[in-house]
Amino acid sequence: MTSSVGRTCWAIAEGYIPGWSNGPEPQLESHETCCILNAGDRPANVELTIYFADRGPAGPYKVRVDASRTTHLRFNELEDPEPVPTDTPFASLIRSDVPIVVQHTRLDSRQAENALMTTMAFPVD
Amino acid sequence: MTSSVGRTCWAIAEGYIPGWSNGPEPQLESHETCCILNAGDRPANVELTIYFADRGPAGPYKVRVDASRTTHLRFNELEDPEPVPTDTPFASLIRSDVPIVVQHTRLDSRQAENALMTTMAFPVD
Amino acid sequence: MTSSVGRTCWAIAEGYIPGWSNGPEPQLESHETCCILNAGDRPANVELTIYFADRGPAGPYKVRVDASRTTHLRFNELEDPEPVPTDTPFASLIRSDVPIVVQHTRLDSRQAENALMTTMAFPVD
Amino acid sequence: MTSSVGRTCWAIAEGYIPGWSNGPEPQLESHETCCILNAGDRPANVELTIYFADRGPAGPYKVRVDASRTTHLRFNELEDPEPVPTDTPFASLIRSDVPIVVQHTRLDSRQAENALMTTMAFPVD
Repeated sequence: MTSSVGRTCWAIAEGYIPGWSNGPEPQLESHETCCILNAGDRPANVELTIYFADRGPAGPYKVRVDASRTTHLRFNELEDPEPVPTDTPFASLIRSDVPIVVQHTRLDSRQAENALMTTMAFPVD
Repeated sequence: MTSSVGRTCWAIAEGYIPGWSNGPEPQLESHETCCILNAGDRPANVELTIYFADRGPAGPYKVRVDASRTTHLRFNELEDPEPVPTDTPFASLIRSDVPIVVQHTRLDSRQAENALMTTMAFPVD
Repeated sequence: MTSSVGRTCWAIAEGYIPGWSNGPEPQLESHETCCILNAGDRPANVELTIYFADRGPAGPYKVRVDASRTTHLRFNELEDPEPVPTDTPFASLIRSDVPIVVQHTRLDSRQAENALMTTMAFPVD
Repeated sequence: MTSSVGRTCWAIAEGYIPGWSNGPEPQLESHETCCILNAGDRPANVELTIYFADRGPAGPYKVRVDASRTTHLRFNELEDPEPVPTDTPFASLIRSDVPIVVQHTRLDSRQAENALMTTMAFPVD
């Protein structure tokens, strides 16, 4: 019944990991997040590709989201094949072998008080 | 004329009830909100399912939105079948028996000044 | 060429005019805004209907957006047929006789530092 | 495989370059950004048109985004054919000869702490 919630390819044109933080970690550490919902009954094998302004793409970064689960993935925790640089604009493409829903959120705590922003990613397919 | 404004299934991949607040309640209490508009001429029977990172889904939570009305539902006020835990990432699926429009908003007042974010939910159907 | 940019009916499920402000007016006065772009070559006759939690809808509020112009409409400036109450959740439906694009923004300056949020409205048709 | 990620015409109804800033530049300078992802294998020739409340449109502003690259374009850096005025509401239309994805972000640092907002642009075609 919920086996087809979402799409299999999503894009986020904005991306930026702030270079510093204020406040208690991990809650108020500056972070850029890709929230993935897999409401279906099969696990999702997800691959992220990261695009930059002045070099070729990085990735694929592989993430598994189990059936009926959500993963709030922090870009600064991606390490394989390479970490995502801080203080550097990027964009991302998220592909999955089953339908998922993707939302983009940033918490920026570079100044004393934090700032938040969010948007649904763009469904490509 | 306005009997088909919106969709009957919506997804929000982001979800998080901040663990603490600053400022006068209820306006500046930290909250995660699911805004529902029923612009049609029949009441909407809405069911929410909450997804987590490391356990099975909770719900359904049942909410009724009368015809030509809006409900700004705070996730921290959901109690039946179980409260939504704070300081825990989640996602949600919102189903209705008539078309509705769903928007997601967070007010985070964990630090001295509040932060806001909003996005339209993703129309699944 | 740009005569069909957008849609003729849009919905915003979130709406709230903060009850107070900090900072110099009008830039930092708390406000809820409905940004309308008319990129076409004919004027847009726009009608807004406001929905509430516990009473019937208000409106229609009539606004004209000239061809090739944008209007950033503050809900707190609507007066005819009645002002929009502050500190009260609402939602809105925006109809136009020609295609337009609608985006929702809030600046909240109730605390010493302002907070911002924005999203595209939902295209109903 | 990724030659058709996105659309060729996008609209942003909100636009405003805050008139002043706080904090270290360029990271915390107030800015209004149009993030463009070109995930395809051909360069994107992009043209922006800026719409105002009380005068005719400005532009086209021409930007090139190479294949497999992202550009986070700050509206306050646009100079040809004319700078975009600060403290003035505007809207924008973004056209490309190949599919792209467009997201709108504002960082407002007019007060001591910054505020953030973002949304996907509206896909016109």
